[in-house]
Amino acid sequence: MTHKLALIGFGNVGQGFAEILRDKKEFLYETEELTTKIVAIADINKGSIYHPDGLDISTVLDVLEGTGTIENYPACEGLMTGWNSLKTIQETNADTIIEVSFTDVNTGQPAIDYCKAAFNSGKNVVMTNKGPVALAFKELMELARRKGVYWGFEGTVMSGTPALRMPVTTLAGNEITEIRGILNGTTNYILTKMEEDGISFKEALKQAQELGYAEADPTNDIEGYDARYKIVILANYLMGANLNVKDVICKGITNLTLKEIETAKMERKRWKLLAKATKRGEQICASIAPEKVELLDPLASISGAVNAVTYECDLLGPVTLSGAGAGKRETGFSLLIDLISIHRQTLSNHNR
Amino acid sequence: MTHKLALIGFGNVGQGFAEILRDKKEFLYETEELTTKIVAIADINKGSIYHPDGLDISTVLDVLEGTGTIENYPACEGLMTGWNSLKTIQETNADTIIEVSFTDVNTGQPAIDYCKAAFNSGKNVVMTNKGPVALAFKELMELARRKGVYWGFEGTVMSGTPALRMPVTTLAGNEITEIRGILNGTTNYILTKMEEDGISFKEALKQAQELGYAEADPTNDIEGYDARYKIVILANYLMGANLNVKDVICKGITNLTLKEIETAKMERKRWKLLAKATKRGEQICASIAPEKVELLDPLASISGAVNAVTYECDLLGPVTLSGAGAGKRETGFSLLIDLISIHRQTLSNHNR
Repeated sequence: MTHKLALIGFGNVGQGFAEILRDKKEFLYETEELTTKIVAIADINKGSIYHPDGLDISTVLDVLEGTGTIENYPACEGLMTGWNSLKTIQETNADTIIEVSFTDVNTGQPAIDYCKAAFNSGKNVVMTNKGPVALAFKELMELARRKGVYWGFEGTVMSGTPALRMPVTTLAGNEITEIRGILNGTTNYILTKMEEDGISFKEALKQAQELGYAEADPTNDIEGYDARYKIVILANYLMGANLNVKDVICKGITNLTLKEIETAKMERKRWKLLAKATKRGEQICASIAPEKVELLDPLASISGAVNAVTYECDLLGPVTLSGAGAGKRETGFSLLIDLISIHRQTLSNHNR
Repeated sequence: MTHKLALIGFGNVGQGFAEILRDKKEFLYETEELTTKIVAIADINKGSIYHPDGLDISTVLDVLEGTGTIENYPACEGLMTGWNSLKTIQETNADTIIEVSFTDVNTGQPAIDYCKAAFNSGKNVVMTNKGPVALAFKELMELARRKGVYWGFEGTVMSGTPALRMPVTTLAGNEITEIRGILNGTTNYILTKMEEDGISFKEALKQAQELGYAEADPTNDIEGYDARYKIVILANYLMGANLNVKDVICKGITNLTLKEIETAKMERKRWKLLAKATKRGEQICASIAPEKVELLDPLASISGAVNAVTYECDLLGPVTLSGAGAGKRETGFSLLIDLISIHRQTLSNHNR
């Protein structure tokens, strides 16, 4: 059974995902018996195409590169163009919606509405937008469950590094009493540079911007807002918390001085912007703040743009996972692993 | 449906596992709908008991502590004593055999025969013995498949730290091109002590022995033989290799001098006993050898008895997992997570 996909959004991540499906077609069939077809793509800037029998990925990418819009895809019988995102979600024959639209992280829109539309149409959603998961977790999870569809969002925390799926599949049976993470690559890159090169926060930020690690307006990263969304997702999904983004105390790294960085060094410590969620009795508290960690703490050695998370488990003790926290292929992979999970469930049901 | 278990072996790990089942009874039911019953225990030194309706774990542990044999379990109708391991495997009503017998790692026996007997009786096996997995992987996996039963062995590599299950459930879709690990806590403890305290290999070994990290005869650890079994399991299970333990080049840490440790320090490097498996084209090579790793390598900061492994993935890049590599509760947990995996499969089949 071919798994039919519709992509809502076709920016960097969507294109990275499409390239993976194209490049690993044989591998995915051999290792997972997975065959996929992209039947539709709808992007607010790059146009919209739909063919119930599937689109050729290389042709889509070529046409986009050459003409700036996917609607120049070669005309053929059954090809439709110009459908908007909602219509694409509701009326195409896709099994799963790959939701990678441009979304306002403060409202979670339009991604929240897209999720609802998909679930109500009996379609799975796999996504990388943080907003809907941080802002509307309970509501959307409940709706997906009621409609009997799957909702995957591995990519919302550490791109393809399995910060969400790893504990669920491999640490079950433990109670997770604390989660501590380096969940923002930009700030970790800045802190690493300050310590290694002995430069100020301002200089390090400038370098990060020149290298494309930080945006022109870096507020979201350096004030800890990005990490705040991610710790809310981790706490709500893995610890059963009921946190709101606004409730999380949040302090960024803008006031950290070179002197503080160097003092820590002499104490055999290192400043890190830590995202934390801690269980105390029935209560779960979360915070974002710079903290001096011991050099022997596994999080201390996480340098540059790498991300990492430590799960404190009652049976197993601390378990730490580190890897990429961003990137076109890496985030594209997060969509793939969610898709593989859906496929494995389907397969195990069919094989009975 | 209650999952019925028979424990073959009742040493440290078996007792740790039994304690977990007792202490987390409600938690496992609430989070996983898992209910278990230990129906039989057979240990070559501590005796053997079987009751088809299940044994009371606290009573078993008390009786063992008080009298040195579990056969002093209070007599009741239906209780049988004195069954040997094979009879316990073949003739009890257990669904799953928890294989934690005392086994010769060079031959994998008697654990290999126990696995075969269990599979042939239609019973799952969950185990922590490395021998059978390193020496008879293909044969046993094939038999388990043919008999439609499950074979779990998470605990053979990094105790409960999910070195095997994590990549299978969360990195699928990637090709793993290299695995590099610190898979032996004893040698890592010795290397950490040499560097931190400036003491010789001999002194560090003595300390490790006093603390119980190293055995009276430490050969198996310090010559790399223990890590060799583990890299063979990782390579064969995760990379589809067909390695024999004897084929793996193996160099221990006995010749490493304090001077070499200190020279590395000045180069911003650190000696680690690395277990490696590398794919080159269709070929997979594995080795155990001390290696100087860069301080910024996530493996460099793994100190003391902690274990860690880095998976080099074609889509996601390097992903590193670190955590306990030994311990009563930690290894007991490895059995639990294998059991939870069986239970989840059963549950998802029943719910259809």
